Amino acid sequence: MIIKPVASISGELQDGVFLFPVRVYYEDTDAGGIVYYANYLKFAERTRTEFIRSLGVRQQDGLESEDKFAFVVRHCDIDYQVPAVLDDELVVSCRVTSIGGASVEIHQDIMRGDQILVSVDVKAVYVSLRTKRPTRIPKDMLAKIQAI
Amino acid sequence: MIIKPVASISGELQDGVFLFPVRVYYEDTDAGGIVYYANYLKFAERTRTEFIRSLGVRQQDGLESEDKFAFVVRHCDIDYQVPAVLDDELVVSCRVTSIGGASVEIHQDIMRGDQILVSVDVKAVYVSLRTKRPTRIPKDMLAKIQAI
Amino acid sequence: MIIKPVASISGELQDGVFLFPVRVYYEDTDAGGIVYYANYLKFAERTRTEFIRSLGVRQQDGLESEDKFAFVVRHCDIDYQVPAVLDDELVVSCRVTSIGGASVEIHQDIMRGDQILVSVDVKAVYVSLRTKRPTRIPKDMLAKIQAI
Amino acid sequence: MIIKPVASISGELQDGVFLFPVRVYYEDTDAGGIVYYANYLKFAERTRTEFIRSLGVRQQDGLESEDKFAFVVRHCDIDYQVPAVLDDELVVSCRVTSIGGASVEIHQDIMRGDQILVSVDVKAVYVSLRTKRPTRIPKDMLAKIQAI
Repeated sequence: MIIKPVASISGELQDGVFLFPVRVYYEDTDAGGIVYYANYLKFAERTRTEFIRSLGVRQQDGLESEDKFAFVVRHCDIDYQVPAVLDDELVVSCRVTSIGGASVEIHQDIMRGDQILVSVDVKAVYVSLRTKRPTRIPKDMLAKIQAI
Repeated sequence: MIIKPVASISGELQDGVFLFPVRVYYEDTDAGGIVYYANYLKFAERTRTEFIRSLGVRQQDGLESEDKFAFVVRHCDIDYQVPAVLDDELVVSCRVTSIGGASVEIHQDIMRGDQILVSVDVKAVYVSLRTKRPTRIPKDMLAKIQAI
Repeated sequence: MIIKPVASISGELQDGVFLFPVRVYYEDTDAGGIVYYANYLKFAERTRTEFIRSLGVRQQDGLESEDKFAFVVRHCDIDYQVPAVLDDELVVSCRVTSIGGASVEIHQDIMRGDQILVSVDVKAVYVSLRTKRPTRIPKDMLAKIQAI
Repeated sequence: MIIKPVASISGELQDGVFLFPVRVYYEDTDAGGIVYYANYLKFAERTRTEFIRSLGVRQQDGLESEDKFAFVVRHCDIDYQVPAVLDDELVVSCRVTSIGGASVEIHQDIMRGDQILVSVDVKAVYVSLRTKRPTRIPKDMLAKIQAI
């Protein structure tokens, strides 16, 4: 079967804030009829990944290098205001609020229309997965993040 | 914060086969460095949901009706040929191979480019979630599925 | 096939702190070779559920009542210190730090031996899933929690 | 905080069949009020892992060796008969039905009491995660599996 390319989603920048759409499926919900509380962190991580991808950085490159590198979350503060439900079409924001040599702080809102459902503040550290130790964020990645 | 609508994805029909793009994130992978074997079923279900949505049917309507209704999977046959990895941009197909009064059979391929990574054959039954018993698929939904 | 009962796990109280063992499986890990950051919240929720069960309360009763009730998390603060890996045998603690009429605050540590890997502070509210509004925690559940 | 060891679960052999208890938590359910269809594969995999562990084999050893090795699922046939719900105390069986040089076939039942809810037939292949190619199952692991 030869298929023509199917349009994918990549998110977009609006006034310096990266925005990414997320649809709620059965897998995201629980028996309470709402999105399971841990799954908002998946939506947040997808959006951070797409934000980094939009800068032209492939995370898989970090994993494939001899000494594997990746961003690892150190701290996470989640405020749940309104639950999302099945079929919701959400938009997740990603805004860098602070950046150091080996770490970055990010604020994210998970929204339905103009309503904020969940807010997430994340502190992530760039580490070597071999030594489990913080490492300097590569210069070109740092420059791209600072340019926004 | 007032945001402009962000383009979402809805999949598309090509030669009677519904196709939906799926990106692989960290949440989908495991310590083996590949997509965890159960998670392909999530990709398949998202695609079936988007297929039904493309017919103009909202599944949440079924859940909100007094006697809740939903498609429940009865049988699933999964053939794993090639593993997907982080950052992969997959396309998942959905083709109805047989339809009865209360059940439907669907073939799905999870593809990377023109290569089939995983094939899934699903038999789903339309049930009342209150009685847990099969129920006739609503006529308009049936007609829309048969029209393809 | 007739099987004899298989011993299940129920956790235990040690000095007023509830402790529950959690094993790390492939499903919990990601391509970075460590437990995916959202999945620690699953470990924490399992432990809170077993804590409530140890008080003789069945959460499913709340879901089956006419006006469904459940604890819903309002706020969550997660501190990631050391990552867990495949096959780890963890112990998760659960200690109520504050309790009001409709809400409860809980501190949880996810430990490997005597080392704390991840700490979670949770604020949960008892809500009606129909109205999505806070409701008084049933008196007998409140009394049981306060007794510890 | 110094904690005393907390009893973990390890499953048990009954008449040549390995049995492992699994509790259903919120994370496993969906908005239909039942266990999400992909999550039974997690229960099955946990049980296969505990079966292998009961033979004295540590899977993490395979991942930590220079040329990483792991069992990868090639085919899976799942029959869903009765759905599991929140708080269910399930028992999952694991019985090797066939074993070759690099592959193994396993039958698993997911049970509530004496009732089979879901049956899973799995074919797994032992592969090098570096070359993605099948490799001979180590002799001592093979001997231990055949001894049952």
